[in-house]
Order: sequence, then structure tokens, then C-alpha cells
Amino acid sequence: MKDTRERVVVTEVGMRDGLQSIARTMPTEFKRRWIDAAYAAGVRHMEVASFVPAKLLPQMADAEEVIAHALTYDDLIVTALVPNLKGAQRALDCGVHRIVAPISVSAAHSVANVRKTPAEMIDVFAAMRDLIDRMPTAPNASTRHTRRVELIAGLSTVFGCTLQGAVPDADIAAIARAAVDAGADVIALGDTTGEATPRRVAEVIERVRGVAGSKLRSLHLHDTRGLGLANTLIALQHGIREFDASLAGLGGCPHAPGATGNVNTEDLVFMLDSMGYDTGIDLTRLIASRAVLADALPGEPLYGYLARAGVPMQFAAHARRLESTESRVPQ
Amino acid sequence: MKDTRERVVVTEVGMRDGLQSIARTMPTEFKRRWIDAAYAAGVRHMEVASFVPAKLLPQMADAEEVIAHALTYDDLIVTALVPNLKGAQRALDCGVHRIVAPISVSAAHSVANVRKTPAEMIDVFAAMRDLIDRMPTAPNASTRHTRRVELIAGLSTVFGCTLQGAVPDADIAAIARAAVDAGADVIALGDTTGEATPRRVAEVIERVRGVAGSKLRSLHLHDTRGLGLANTLIALQHGIREFDASLAGLGGCPHAPGATGNVNTEDLVFMLDSMGYDTGIDLTRLIASRAVLADALPGEPLYGYLARAGVPMQFAAHARRLESTESRVPQ
Repeated sequence: MKDTRERVVVTEVGMRDGLQSIARTMPTEFKRRWIDAAYAAGVRHMEVASFVPAKLLPQMADAEEVIAHALTYDDLIVTALVPNLKGAQRALDCGVHRIVAPISVSAAHSVANVRKTPAEMIDVFAAMRDLIDRMPTAPNASTRHTRRVELIAGLSTVFGCTLQGAVPDADIAAIARAAVDAGADVIALGDTTGEATPRRVAEVIERVRGVAGSKLRSLHLHDTRGLGLANTLIALQHGIREFDASLAGLGGCPHAPGATGNVNTEDLVFMLDSMGYDTGIDLTRLIASRAVLADALPGEPLYGYLARAGVPMQFAAHARRLESTESRVPQ
Repeated sequence: MKDTRERVVVTEVGMRDGLQSIARTMPTEFKRRWIDAAYAAGVRHMEVASFVPAKLLPQMADAEEVIAHALTYDDLIVTALVPNLKGAQRALDCGVHRIVAPISVSAAHSVANVRKTPAEMIDVFAAMRDLIDRMPTAPNASTRHTRRVELIAGLSTVFGCTLQGAVPDADIAAIARAAVDAGADVIALGDTTGEATPRRVAEVIERVRGVAGSKLRSLHLHDTRGLGLANTLIALQHGIREFDASLAGLGGCPHAPGATGNVNTEDLVFMLDSMGYDTGIDLTRLIASRAVLADALPGEPLYGYLARAGVPMQFAAHARRLESTESRVPQ
């Protein structure tokens, strides 16, 4: 029977956002094992590194090696976070498929984070666009690329900023429009500070869609206030079909003031599965892949409800029922 | 300016569901303090005790005393959980306003929990109805009641049972209908085992509403798999305006296999506030009331995202903006 469920893309960002948010550095070999385990579980989108100076972020010093390993999987979409033009060149040299450039909609956060105003970051973003456009697009021996690299504007602090508080909708829309004008392939919205609420998620999505249209594709949510999955639900209802998440909620303790973990990949996949979406990810294997983190980072807190409570007894049967109900084109 | 936000009732059930799920017994004096603190925070619905034999549940042995204290607040709606007719008589003698009778839709769970089949529990429920109907309804010296006691059918395991797995929709609907026929004032749906998912919440609500109509009013959700607030969101979208919750998620460790805490009251109120609903509850005072639990139950794990991450800086301002946007009848 053909699977006719609607597809939702879950991008594992733990190798980047998770690992850069904890104090110690995961050895490269474990990063490779994590990528292997995630791939084995069916994850086909991973944000595996960021290109920032190693002296600022030693956790990401092995970006090239990690990306090279990820690229050994033909059908794995490999993303890197890149805050500046030099990083973009490095990422392109490595052969990544997607570049995410963080563009904060909060001036206060932008300056604190990348020492640039949002307008200056838009200029950097436009320069990244030029860089990508100058790349050869035809597959040949000198490049890994058989398709155009996607440039993603990762709009951060859209649901609130711990420095300046709420960010006016007009600012969010203006920067989203500027990112589109500067050549963004994708607009992603990031709840950098874990302040998103269901109502604001709906409002911001609609506002940004007004200026970005179908380029608004992805959400990067944190679970700081327990609303990660509720916010995801609202985003699904408002047409979003791509979500970032982090295995075991790595990268921040949801139970410590100020710390902000990404939405937990396992819990997210469970919710999506239960709603009849197809993530391509095997939940049992995904949960098993947490073992890599336990091995690599002994003592590091691993979060997640599902890994502890287990998949409900009824769930497998229920999922099958959903599937058969939804299969409009029996084969 | 008149508050025109839509009301959502949050019933604090920690004094019952929370306290009966932990091993030790909270001294009566602390239960009184908890009720006082919850009342001071604006909570006006509390399920404060259950009437079961003290030898089975010593945590609830002081039910009469606790209820007497709760009833010192004129505008506090006091609920007790009652599994049998004898308990119902005790609860009525105490002067409670609402009685919740647990009726499991899973035969396996029902027999294990109350040694009765669902059909036998419906008979008990009908007898409770008779008991209430024989009470004098006019206010007089011999009764505290100035209004009719509400009888709530608390349908448990509707979203799945750890003993029998999924419960067929037809069973759920049949038992909901039987409860209505037996005289339920309110039908409440309980995710006893923490297996509810957004899609099933929507399906079950619609199915039960088909037989119970507007008597379907309340949801009792657990947060075992991190979906408590996402499920709440769906229930809100499907017209539910009453939710049970437990301060600090007391009554079960969300991070231990099989343990099932109620939805956390503080996190729920934060979400509802952020969506523009009026709970009448002051979030800051509610969070402060956790101190009673910390005093009474040293070492007991207290859960909750908001209590640890704090109310976002922007939130107060945002809530004001929502309120002014929504006030259609400025005074």
C-alpha cells in the first residue's frame, strides 16, 4: 500500500545547536557516530556544524570533518549555520547543501550576537547570495553539487528577545522582506529565547507569510517554557512542514533558569507520527540513538518524555489504523 | 476597562490526584495552606480529596477536614473524587459542590481499579444521582448547599489503557451515553495513562460530544509524553473550557517510566494567559504557591517549565496588548 501521508521534514540540529550550547566538546568520532545513528533511524536532514572561529566555539572546530562524513550519505541533506561571509565560503567549499544565516530581528540581540545590526546582517546575507550564485551549478569533477545550494534566512528572536523584550511585528516583517529581497530561498523563524506561545506563533507566521509567501517554510523552536510541541501544533495548522529539533533536547536544560533546549526530536516525531504525518523516521531507532549521546557525553542531562515513558502499547496499532484510513490510493 | 476575555476554568487537582499518587502523606495543615495559597492566587475550582477507604489510600484519610477548610471560602467550588456510593454519601455530608465518579471505559482497567465493570460503575453512578436528587435543594440550616450538587462522570482511560491498549471509539461513546442517561451533569474525559495525542483528543471529543452534547465539558490530561499542553490546545479548539491540572505537576514523575503527572498548573495557566483566555489566576502568585509543596514535601520532585524559566520579559506587556485588542466593549 502506498504511503500517502503528508510529509513533514524534521531537521536534527543537535549536532550544531545542541553541541554548541554545552560546555564540553564532543569528539569528532562521536559526531560521526551520531550522524550514522540518526541516518539509520531515517533522519535525512541534519544541521551538523557551524562555521565560526574555533577560538569562539571550540565545539565546532571540526566542522569540515563532520560535514565530510555527513556527505558520505547520498540522500542526506547537510546544513551548516554560517554567520559571516568567510564562514559561507568555508561551508560552500565543504559542499553543504544548505546554509542557514542567523539574522536577528532584535537589534539588541543582533549586535550582542554577531556585532552587526539586522540591516548589516542583511548586507552579509546578500553577499552570501552572490557567493552561491557564482558557484558552478552543473555537476562536474570540481564540485560536489548537483543542485543549487539553498540559502536560509534564520530569523532569530522573532518571538521575543531577552534583551529588548517583544519585537514589533513591523520589524519582523521588514526584516523578513529584506531577507527575501536579498535572495533567501527559505525563511525560517527561530524562537531563540524560548518565548514563543501558540497565539504568537500563529500571528508571526501569518505576518511573515504576508511578505515571504511560500518561502516561509521552517520553524526552529525551543522548549524553554514547555510549549514547544503546542507551538509546533499551531505551526502545522498554519502550514509549516519543516521543524528543527534536537535529540534528547540536547543543548539546554529546560529545568534551569535561562537555559533553552531545542524541541526534543523523539517527542516531536512521536507527536507527528500520532497525527498521521510521515517523517520517515523510525521512532524506536531514534530513541535507541540516544545511546551515542550517553556514551559521548557521560553525565550530560538527556531530556525527553517519550524515551522515558515509552511508546504507548496502542500506538503501533493506532498508527497502522491511521495509515490505512488515510491511504486514499490503495495499491 | 471591562475584561471581555473568554473564561477558562482551571481546576487544581493536585490535592487529590497529586497527593494520592505520591508515597507519603501530606499533613492536613499543609493541605490547608495549599488551599489557602491556591485561593490567594485566584484558583476557584479545586478537587481537594477522594473518598476511598483510608486503609487503601491513607493520603486521603483527612478528606472531611480538608473539605471543611476549603468550604470556608464562599466562592470556591469544591470537588471530591468518589468511587462508590458510600463515598458519595460522605462527600455530600461534607457539603462538596461537585462529585467526580471515575468510570473507566476500559473493562480491564475498570475491574483492576474499582473491581467493577464499566456497566456496574454506571449502576453505581445512577445510584449517586438518586442520592443527590433526594437531597434538599433549598438553602436551610441543615445543609450547606444553596445549589444543586453537580455529578461528573470522569471517563477514564479514554485515550488508551496500559492494560488493554486502545479503547474502541464505540465503547467510549456507549459509556458516555450511559453516563448521560444515568444522570451525569458533566462528562469529563481523562487521559489516565498519559497516552493522549492531539489527533485522538480531537476525535474523542467529537465522538463523545455526539452523544453527550454540551455536557461534555472538561478534560483531565496527564503530561506523560510531553503532549499535555498540545492536547490542551486541541481541546480548546474543539470547545473545551475546563481543564484539570496539578501544581508543580505533582503526582508523577514525567521522567520515569510509567509515572504520569498531571498537566502542570503553572505552565497551563501561562499558555492560557498567552492565548488571551481569562483563568482568573495570578501567575506570579501561583508560582509562589509552590513554596507550600517545597515546605510540606521536602525532596519531592517539583516539575514545571515556567517556574524555572520564568515569565518572559515581554509577556506582561504582550498580555496587556492582547487584552486591549480583545476588549470589544471598552468601559
